[in-house]
This record gives sequence, C-alpha cells and structure tokens, in this order.
Amino acid sequence: MSASPGSAVFAAVDWGTSSLRVWLLGPDGTVLGERRSREGMQVAAETGFRAILEDHLRALDASSGLPVVICGMAGARQGWVEAPYVETPASFDELASGAIAVEGLTREVRILPGVAQKAGGRPDVMRGEETIVVGLAGGSDALVCLPGTHSKWVDVRERRIMGFSTFMTGETYALLAGHSILRHAIDGDVDILSERDAFAAGIEASIKAPDLTLNRLFALRAAGLLGAAGTAESAARLSGLVIGLELAGARRLHPGSETVRLAASGVMLDLYSTALGVAGFSYEAADADEAVRRGLFAAGRQLFPELAASAR
Amino acid sequence: MSASPGSAVFAAVDWGTSSLRVWLLGPDGTVLGERRSREGMQVAAETGFRAILEDHLRALDASSGLPVVICGMAGARQGWVEAPYVETPASFDELASGAIAVEGLTREVRILPGVAQKAGGRPDVMRGEETIVVGLAGGSDALVCLPGTHSKWVDVRERRIMGFSTFMTGETYALLAGHSILRHAIDGDVDILSERDAFAAGIEASIKAPDLTLNRLFALRAAGLLGAAGTAESAARLSGLVIGLELAGARRLHPGSETVRLAASGVMLDLYSTALGVAGFSYEAADADEAVRRGLFAAGRQLFPELAASAR
Repeated sequence: MSASPGSAVFAAVDWGTSSLRVWLLGPDGTVLGERRSREGMQVAAETGFRAILEDHLRALDASSGLPVVICGMAGARQGWVEAPYVETPASFDELASGAIAVEGLTREVRILPGVAQKAGGRPDVMRGEETIVVGLAGGSDALVCLPGTHSKWVDVRERRIMGFSTFMTGETYALLAGHSILRHAIDGDVDILSERDAFAAGIEASIKAPDLTLNRLFALRAAGLLGAAGTAESAARLSGLVIGLELAGARRLHPGSETVRLAASGVMLDLYSTALGVAGFSYEAADADEAVRRGLFAAGRQLFPELAASAR
Repeated sequence: MSASPGSAVFAAVDWGTSSLRVWLLGPDGTVLGERRSREGMQVAAETGFRAILEDHLRALDASSGLPVVICGMAGARQGWVEAPYVETPASFDELASGAIAVEGLTREVRILPGVAQKAGGRPDVMRGEETIVVGLAGGSDALVCLPGTHSKWVDVRERRIMGFSTFMTGETYALLAGHSILRHAIDGDVDILSERDAFAAGIEASIKAPDLTLNRLFALRAAGLLGAAGTAESAARLSGLVIGLELAGARRLHPGSETVRLAASGVMLDLYSTALGVAGFSYEAADADEAVRRGLFAAGRQLFPELAASAR
C-alpha cells in the first residue's frame, strides 16, 4: 500500500465552532493527508459548508467519490445538517448509526450526532467530544476529562457514554480575565505555569472552600490595588481558582472514579496535568487530536463496512 | 429655620464610579436640596471634578463659601485627589479625620478615605460603602450587607469596621448574562422575582453544593438547547446561583452573625430580601441612600465643628 491520497478509504472531519480539521485516512487508519483551518461552523454557516469541504478535499487530491465522516458542530441546528442528539446512556455503536447523510452531493457525507443527557436533573449536551471519547476509551471503562472552553467529564462503561458533565471553565476564565474589573489586576498573556505556586494555591483554595469563589475573585483586584500581588501571580491564581472549582465539582459528581484519562494537548495538557496532580487525582494523559481521528475512523468503519473490510 | 438653600451648613456628595449625588444639608441634617447625575468618576476624570461640582452647587443656589464633604471614588488614585485608605479595624472617627482637603479652591472641600483590609490573607478595599455603614450602623454593632456590582459584607463593632468581604456578584451575573454563551439561554431583561421558584432553586443549589457552580452554569445553556427551561426561568436561576454563591461565602466568613442589616433600595432590595430569606438569614432592611447621607452628615459634623455646633 502506498501512502498516497489515492489509497484513502475515507476522509475524517472534525468540524468545531471555530476550527476545522480534515484527514485522509487509509484502510488501517493511517493519515495520508491533513488540513487545518479556522473555517469552523461560525464561518461555514456564512460561506457554505459544502464549498469549504470540497476546497480542502481538492487541496488534498482526494478522489471525487471519497466518502466523508464528520463530527462536531456541523451537525448542530445552526450547522450544515442537524444530526439529532443520541441520549445517554449512548453506546458507541448508536453514535455511528445515528449519523445523518447530507443529501444532494456527488459523494457520501455523514455527520455524526452529539450526545444529550436529559435524565437526572442535570441537562447537558456535547457535539464532537463523544468522538474523542470513542477514540480514546476504545473498549475500556474510563472517566475522561476533556478540558477547554467548556470542559467535559465523561463516564464511559462497557462502550457506552453513561453520563457526563460540562463545566464552563475556559469561558469563565476568559470573561473574568478579559472583560471584568480583574483585567486591571492580571496579565492575561502570562505563562500560567511560570507562577506554579500561585496556580496551585488557587486550585487548593477552590477545592477547600468553593463557596468563597466570588470573594476570592474580588480579592485579586484588591491585592493588585494594595500592591500585595503582581499581575502574573494574579493571573495564575485566577486560573487556579477557576480550574480548581471545576475539579471540586468533578470530584463530587464522580466520587467513585479511580484514574482520569486526560485528553488534551499543548498548554491545556500542561495546565490540567498540574491541576489534576495538585487536586490529588491520578491521571493518564492522551492526545485529543489523535483520539478524535481514531473515533472518526471507528465510525467510518461502521458506516462504510465495504471499505472497512479492506482493513481487516 | 427656613428650609432654603441659604440655611445649608454644608454640601454632602456621594461620588461613585458611574454616578454622582449632591445634597445640601441643614444644621440638623435636613435635606435642603438634591441633585443626581451620571457624572461619576469615569466622566469627571475627563471633564473635571471641580467644574462638575460647582455646576451642581450653582444649580442648587449654594453659597460660594459652603463647605463640601465627599465620599466615594473621587478619593481614588484615578479620582480627584487621592485619599489614602484607612486600615481595618477602622474607627468611625478615624474615617472622618482621614479626610483629604482639596487645595486651591474658594471653598473647603474634603474627601473621605476608603477602607483597606490588609491583614488575614483576605485583601479587600472599599470606597464609599464605609460612609453608608457609618450612617446605617450608628452606634450599634451589626453585620451590614450592601448588595451590588461588588457586594460588601461589613462587620461593625463598637463604632469600628472590624473587617469586611467583597463579592464580585453583580459583575459576574452581568458578564454571564450578557457576554457568555448563556446570553442565548436567558432573558436578561426579565423581572427575576416573577420567576421566584427558579430564583430560589438557584440560591438553594449554590448553598448546598457551591462546587458545582461551573457545571450548573453550562446546564442553563443545555436546558435551553433541550427545551427544558425557558429564558425567563433560566435568568432567574442564574441570578439565584450567583447570589446564592455570595450568601454561601458570607455565611462561612461570618458564622457568628445574628441579624443582617441589609442596605439597599429598589430591585436590589427586593432580590436580596428574598435571597436572604431563602438562605435562612434574618435581616432588617434599610435605605442605602438615606444611610450615605447620614454618614456624610456625621463626617461633616466632625470635620466642621463650628457648623455642627449650631445643630446642638
């Protein structure tokens, strides 16, 4: 088998709110080509999903008949074609079989559904993360942590997403750092881990007494006014307070969990590795990028069994 | 004594970040004239504090020699003249005697200091609220709650501000309601108390498990997407979650407190009266507007004893 675009069995696409990744995959899941762009759902909803996808496939020399599997916000109501949520407990097989076909194209394009949690008084939704979870968890049970703007903690048992919880962590940090009175007290561009002690102190404070969060936020401003803390230190402490509040909640919601499988990369991997350690979680880190590709490959094999056959 | 501007003994000014209130006060504290405007510190720092003050005094027919007592942000570093903080424990007498004179004017103008808390690892500051506290507490011990953008809880004993804690409540609500993904899920213009059950449920949830805050925030968005909650209900629940988080923290910081003296007016009075009741605090409500005037009058009597004499 030559590693050329011509050997690709399908294209795998992770279409998020603000970014897009396209891979050509060989029969065994090997990456034969890759494209990344900022043409996420928000851009595509304006300029057209089909045109953007075809541009990238052309740039990758993909054949005109190559099938495509997509996860993420392309399946949202405001996306390309809505792929209704599968409800928890959601089996991995159901996720793939719930894919929606985009009609009227020259090639087969399937969009995977998101997952909704309606029971238990804790409404929640995800779109895209479920595919990372499939790729990451494989056949084993796990508590998966996917940090980000809206961090997800996902409880996987027997190839099912049993339940999950989203925390508005990254968005809350960004709002406070950039748009609140705290913007005067913190340096939003600092490398948080260069102030590891302040970051750890923030995590510990939130875990110990999460009820003091709103007071501790203002204390950052007061410390700045009184010359008691520098802007780099305060940025790290703020990040610690917010991530610590997530970890405190995750511990309450998943009390029986042993090891956390952390799916992240880059700065988020570093921050959450440190944070989980400070909070006393044991964890294994994994690459989120690779995981979503694996999840898309697993879905493609189920959706296009004739192609999958060649991989066996 | 006739209730005319000519009988005024001094002018009392509450100069906040975004608003300004000027009163002419008679020898017994009677209000002989009043002006309110949006020319707070932010505006005045551009157009000039002196010009704005003189315009309002002229409009009130105040004499050119009438002294003025000011509290609030006019004394901040970025204000008119900086009045350095008095540190906790701060006696009421110290607050008045710490006033700074504005030089080079035809009349006497004194700006009252704010209060800083440096000890105990809980840095905090206030400017203006200390004058409300003086006017409100008078001679009696109290735990005073001043709700707002940055809510203050102030512990008063023996005519001293012993300590206090600021909570970033109002600002956090405004950020989440107006600038986060929750703006799609909530109706920011709703009368919160028209959805009293959702408001109360939010308060109870935050008090019971403050560690779940970041998860409960995202749940508002998910409930909207899944059609499980309306935008008015979600706005009330969000308000309850944020105020409840403040109340949970206030209870931890002031465990021995009996009755809370709530200084507020309008919508804030209604919201916090309800919230304190749901959270199981007993409270007495008082008018914040009247209290700041009383505090300014007390300071003026101390600063200008020759005028105060006529009131005895």
